[in-house]
Amino acid sequence: MKKFFAELIGTFVLVFAGTGSVVFGGKTIGHAGIALAFGLAIVAAAYSIGTISGAHLNPAVSIAMFANKRLDGKNLAIYLVAQVIGAFLASALLFFLAANSGMNITKVGLGQNDLAVGVTPLGGFIFELIATFIFVLVILTVTSESKGNAHLAGLVIGLTLTLLILVGLNVTGLSVNPARSLAPAVFVGGSALRNVWIFILAPIVGGLLAAPVAERLIGTEEK
Amino acid sequence: MKKFFAELIGTFVLVFAGTGSVVFGGKTIGHAGIALAFGLAIVAAAYSIGTISGAHLNPAVSIAMFANKRLDGKNLAIYLVAQVIGAFLASALLFFLAANSGMNITKVGLGQNDLAVGVTPLGGFIFELIATFIFVLVILTVTSESKGNAHLAGLVIGLTLTLLILVGLNVTGLSVNPARSLAPAVFVGGSALRNVWIFILAPIVGGLLAAPVAERLIGTEEK
Amino acid sequence: MKKFFAELIGTFVLVFAGTGSVVFGGKTIGHAGIALAFGLAIVAAAYSIGTISGAHLNPAVSIAMFANKRLDGKNLAIYLVAQVIGAFLASALLFFLAANSGMNITKVGLGQNDLAVGVTPLGGFIFELIATFIFVLVILTVTSESKGNAHLAGLVIGLTLTLLILVGLNVTGLSVNPARSLAPAVFVGGSALRNVWIFILAPIVGGLLAAPVAERLIGTEEK
Amino acid sequence: MKKFFAELIGTFVLVFAGTGSVVFGGKTIGHAGIALAFGLAIVAAAYSIGTISGAHLNPAVSIAMFANKRLDGKNLAIYLVAQVIGAFLASALLFFLAANSGMNITKVGLGQNDLAVGVTPLGGFIFELIATFIFVLVILTVTSESKGNAHLAGLVIGLTLTLLILVGLNVTGLSVNPARSLAPAVFVGGSALRNVWIFILAPIVGGLLAAPVAERLIGTEEK
Repeated sequence: MKKFFAELIGTFVLVFAGTGSVVFGGKTIGHAGIALAFGLAIVAAAYSIGTISGAHLNPAVSIAMFANKRLDGKNLAIYLVAQVIGAFLASALLFFLAANSGMNITKVGLGQNDLAVGVTPLGGFIFELIATFIFVLVILTVTSESKGNAHLAGLVIGLTLTLLILVGLNVTGLSVNPARSLAPAVFVGGSALRNVWIFILAPIVGGLLAAPVAERLIGTEEK
Repeated sequence: MKKFFAELIGTFVLVFAGTGSVVFGGKTIGHAGIALAFGLAIVAAAYSIGTISGAHLNPAVSIAMFANKRLDGKNLAIYLVAQVIGAFLASALLFFLAANSGMNITKVGLGQNDLAVGVTPLGGFIFELIATFIFVLVILTVTSESKGNAHLAGLVIGLTLTLLILVGLNVTGLSVNPARSLAPAVFVGGSALRNVWIFILAPIVGGLLAAPVAERLIGTEEK
Repeated sequence: MKKFFAELIGTFVLVFAGTGSVVFGGKTIGHAGIALAFGLAIVAAAYSIGTISGAHLNPAVSIAMFANKRLDGKNLAIYLVAQVIGAFLASALLFFLAANSGMNITKVGLGQNDLAVGVTPLGGFIFELIATFIFVLVILTVTSESKGNAHLAGLVIGLTLTLLILVGLNVTGLSVNPARSLAPAVFVGGSALRNVWIFILAPIVGGLLAAPVAERLIGTEEK
Repeated sequence: MKKFFAELIGTFVLVFAGTGSVVFGGKTIGHAGIALAFGLAIVAAAYSIGTISGAHLNPAVSIAMFANKRLDGKNLAIYLVAQVIGAFLASALLFFLAANSGMNITKVGLGQNDLAVGVTPLGGFIFELIATFIFVLVILTVTSESKGNAHLAGLVIGLTLTLLILVGLNVTGLSVNPARSLAPAVFVGGSALRNVWIFILAPIVGGLLAAPVAERLIGTEEK
C-alpha cells in the first residue's frame, strides 16, 4: 500500500512539475528549460518516494520491469493505477492553478503531447518508440542489481529524459510515458486526445523492446 | 554557536547569489539561468557550511525538521534567527552593490517574491504550499539516516529548487522559503511586503504537511 | 560480440540524440541546448551499454585506448566498425524521421560538422585537435583504474563534451569524433563531405597526443 | 615537476575553454552558456590533471591553501608560475584561432574581465571579494580531508563557479581568479589592463578571508 501512494505521489510530482513548467514557465524558460524541468522532476521523485517504490512514474517502465520479472502482476496493476491517478491529480491541480493565475487554458494548454505540424503518425510513433527504447534501456541498466549505479540512478534517468525532450519536443512534445500523456489529453481534448493512442502504445512497445536487450546484451537481471 | 554562524553564512550565500542573479543577471541569463542560480546556491552552501549546520537555509525546512524531531526547540530558534539575519545581510549587500553598479533598484527590485499579474492570493498560496511540500519531502528523504543519500544530498536538493523555480517563477517568483522572501520584501516594500505573509505562511504549512508523509510513508526517521 | 552490439547501440544513441537535437530541436533549444544534448547522450550511453563496452562511441577514443594498451588490435577493429555502423544507422533514421516530420533536410541538414564561415582549415584542424586532446585526456583519466572515478565517469565525460561544444559550435560544429562526423557528411554531401577529413584526422591526432600525456604525466595506466 | 605541468595544463584548459566560450560561443550560447562553460572547464580539469595537482587553477586558491598550510612555500611558487603560464598560453592560442576564424578580436575581445558600465571600482572590488570568499570557502571544505567529498569535489567547485558567473557576469565579468584575468587583459590592453589590479587583489583578499573561516568555523584542516 505504501508503494501505491509512493507511485501516486511520484507521478504527481513528475506531471505537476513537468507539464507545469510548460503551462507556467514555457513562455520564458524555453524548450531547454522545459527539458530540464522534466528531468529534474524525475530527480525530485526518485530521491524521495523512489526509496519506497523505485519511482517508475511511467506505465512503460513498469511494464518493462514486469517483462524482466522485477515486478509481479499484482504490483504491476497497483503501479499502473497509482500512476494514472497521480497524473490526473496533477493535471487537475494545474487546471485549477491556471484558472487562478489569469491564464487562458484553452490557449496555453496543459502540456499535452501531440504530433507537431507536419509530423506523420508513423513518424511520431517511431520517434516515441525509439526514445522510449533508449529511456527504458538506461533505466533497466542503471537500476540493475549487478550492472547498476544505485546512488546516481535518479540523476542519470532524469538527465536522460532531459536529453530526449531536447531532441523531440518539436516532434511529439516527447512523452515516453502513457500516464504523462493521458491525463492532459483528457483535460484538453481535441487532437491531443485523438492522437493519445500513439503516446500510450509506442512507449509500451519501445519499453518492451528494451527489456530483452537489457537482459541479454547487458545482463541486467543477473544477480 | 558554530551552527548559528554556519546557517547565517549559508542563508547569506543562498539569498546573495539567488536573488543576486535576478538583480544583476536577470536581463541576460533568463528564467532558466535564475532557476539554475538558486539551485547552485544551495549546492555551494550545502557542500561548505552544510557540513556544520546541515544547511537548512530556510525556516520552512527547520520547522519541518523540528516537527520530525531532528532539531530541538533551542536549535530551531537559533536556526531561524540565523537564517533571517543572513538573508537581511545579503539583501543589504545587494542593495549597496546595486547602488555601486549604476542600477536603479526601485526599477529592478531586489529579487523579491510577489504574486504575478493575474495570480490570486489563493492560487499563489496553494502553489507555494505544493511546491514546498515537494521541496521538503525531498529534503527530509535525501538527508535521512536510513533512506538518504548523504553524498548527493546537496546536489539533489539544489536541483529540486531549480525545478520548482522553472515551474513557478511566473506565478509567485517561487519562494518556498520565508527568510528568502522576507528580507527583499522589507527593502522594496509595496505589494511584495503586503503579500509577504503568503511566502511566510504557505511554505511553513507545506513543510509541515511533508513532515508526516516523509516519516510515515517513506520512513525517514527510522534509524 | 556483445561489445560489438554495445558500441553500435551506444554510438547510435550518441549520434541519434546528439545530431537529432540539432535537426529537430536546434531552432528552439539553441546552442546551449545542443551542447547539453550531446553531453547527456554520452551519459545515457555510458550508464547503459557502457557497462559492457566502456562506451567509447568514438574512434579517436578507441585509438587512444589502443595506444595505451587498454584495447587490443582485434577489439579496436570491432569497436571502430561498430561505431561507424551505429553512426550511419542513426543518421539514416534521422533522415527518415525528418522526412516524416515535414522538414526540408537539404535546408536543415543532419547535424553535420563543417568549418564555419571564415574559419580556415588550419584553424579548424587545430581547434579540433586541441578539443580532442582535452576530451581524451579527461576520458583516459576518469576511466583509469588507479586515477579514475568509475561512478562519475560517464557524467564527467558527458559534461566535458558539453563544454567543448559550448566553445566550438560556431567554429567547426565541434566534432572530436570521426564516426559522429562521417555519417551525416555522407548523407548531406557538399562541403561537409569535402572537409570531413579534418574531422577524422584532427580528433585522432588529438587523442594520440593525449594518450602519452595521460600515461606519463597523470599515470593513468598504473595499476 | 609533474605538479607544475599539471597546473599549467589545467589552467590552460580553464582559460581556453572558459574565455574561449566567450570569444567563439558568446553570441549564441548566452550568459548562461558562458557560466556553464567556465564551470564545466573546472570539471574537465579537476577530473584529469586534478588527480596530480589538485587542480587549483587559480592563484587565489593556491594562496588560501598556503594560508591553511596545505601547500608549502616552494609549491606555492611552482603553482603560481604554472597557472600564469597556462593562462597566457590559452589566451595566445585563442588569439591565433580567432585570427583563423575570420573574427575581429579587437571587437570581440578575449573574454577579459572589466568593470561593466556604471560599476564603480569599489563595487567591483567588493563583488569580486565576496564571490571569491564564497568560492574558496566551498573549495577548502569540499577538498578537506575531514569535511570533504572527494568524489564530487570537482563537480561542486565547477557548479559554484557557474553560480557566481550567473550572478556577476554583468558586474565584472566575474573573475575570482587573477591568472584568468591577467592573461586576456595583457592581450587586449585598454581598460581591462588598467583595472586588472582589481581582479588580482580582490580575489586574493577574498580567498584569504575564507581561509580562517574554513579552518575555524568548518574545521577543514582537522585530520
